[in-house]
Amino acid sequence: MPRYALKLEYDGEPFAGWQRQTDQPSVQGALEAALAALEHDVPSVAAAGRTDAGVHALGQVAHADMTRDWDPFRLSEAVNWHLKPAPVAVVACAHVPGDWHARFSAIERRYTYRVICRRAPLVHARGQAWQVKHDLDVSAMRAGAAHLVGRHDFTTFRAVHCQAQSPVKTLDQVVVEEVAQPNGREIVFHLRARSFLHNQVRSIVGTLERVGARAWSPEDLRAALAARDRAACGPVAPPEGLYLTGVGYPEDVFA
Amino acid sequence: MPRYALKLEYDGEPFAGWQRQTDQPSVQGALEAALAALEHDVPSVAAAGRTDAGVHALGQVAHADMTRDWDPFRLSEAVNWHLKPAPVAVVACAHVPGDWHARFSAIERRYTYRVICRRAPLVHARGQAWQVKHDLDVSAMRAGAAHLVGRHDFTTFRAVHCQAQSPVKTLDQVVVEEVAQPNGREIVFHLRARSFLHNQVRSIVGTLERVGARAWSPEDLRAALAARDRAACGPVAPPEGLYLTGVGYPEDVFA
Repeated sequence: MPRYALKLEYDGEPFAGWQRQTDQPSVQGALEAALAALEHDVPSVAAAGRTDAGVHALGQVAHADMTRDWDPFRLSEAVNWHLKPAPVAVVACAHVPGDWHARFSAIERRYTYRVICRRAPLVHARGQAWQVKHDLDVSAMRAGAAHLVGRHDFTTFRAVHCQAQSPVKTLDQVVVEEVAQPNGREIVFHLRARSFLHNQVRSIVGTLERVGARAWSPEDLRAALAARDRAACGPVAPPEGLYLTGVGYPEDVFA
Repeated sequence: MPRYALKLEYDGEPFAGWQRQTDQPSVQGALEAALAALEHDVPSVAAAGRTDAGVHALGQVAHADMTRDWDPFRLSEAVNWHLKPAPVAVVACAHVPGDWHARFSAIERRYTYRVICRRAPLVHARGQAWQVKHDLDVSAMRAGAAHLVGRHDFTTFRAVHCQAQSPVKTLDQVVVEEVAQPNGREIVFHLRARSFLHNQVRSIVGTLERVGARAWSPEDLRAALAARDRAACGPVAPPEGLYLTGVGYPEDVFA
């Protein structure tokens, strides 16, 4: 069966997450339903990151095995046709070898988290960013973030039900960026690692927000990491600010 | 009665436009209903630009006359509370003199128009930009736009039902900007003038799109302007890409 890699964008808001559910809409379910409209008996699809309910994607990667040989561009057009009106779109498609796996071949995940600081309710970014009503100290958050980069035991920043075998991960990058906004101030966090623990990005961002609000010092964050204790974590940031922006493979299959 | 200037953001999608309608939701109607929850007998509000159905705002300005003396910050918080869940927000509020008028005191309007070039359906920008499935030649659009800057008879780029007394307007700026997008290419048009004719921005952008698609040459656009004939206009761009981004006054009341 020819295998295809699909790069996906989605709005997480209407979905119970990536993973297929029997009784709730999921991104995987929407994608599999669109594929089933093209061919009978399409096996279930696999994705690089099983995003949680409400979490968005700009560069999720999945793979699908088809019976027919599809031109990748025509396959993406056909899937997009059948995905309507769900807020999911195939933005790139490529033929890949049969042993290529969206999840197990991945060597890097990139996440972005959007925070908008302003008093007035969000309008155009509603559901697409975490609104914080106070200002945030970017320098303090950068100082806090610096403690997280590198290889650490991230037990503090890991959901209690996380199924990863080890809490030790290498965080390659945490960049805290300021972005101009017409009516407010946007802070964008960029995180990059080979893989992440469950809720790791939202736990880190929620704790960095406490540092930005000056409720915690950067040193408090370092101590929380060193505690290796879930109870030492700050509040977990809400899902609507989180985006899976990209997945890295040894070769860029969409190039 | 103390008068207040309100800077507004809104998503135009659910509204039949700025202007109050008897049978359809409008931004003016939503704002007046929120004000009516604060005080009895609030006179109707006036805005700098009466945006059409589906058109957005990041910096619409309106004024409202209240009976009580309000602290501007508290007034904005109270109005935002009562505006919920409509996608309208007061992002700034200021006390202004009784002869200050949101529309008649304005000396400049700024509009932005977002076009996203890509094949895949829009996800996060759905309803917030005009999707064009082909690529656009930015240099050609810039050459076309240059013909429009200055004082001209804009009859070609004016809705037939436009109520302005004269079709002669001075267009101070048309900037064609390219913005990085994760999955596609975004072109943002920035237009600035003392005032605009009805449908002028959407008529200009729709015609520039034809130039960008190389269906028209920049010289064709110049000839269309010179024709002073509505029939010479290109297609009118859809409302979802248009934003009233700002209004200028002799003094910045929100400073």
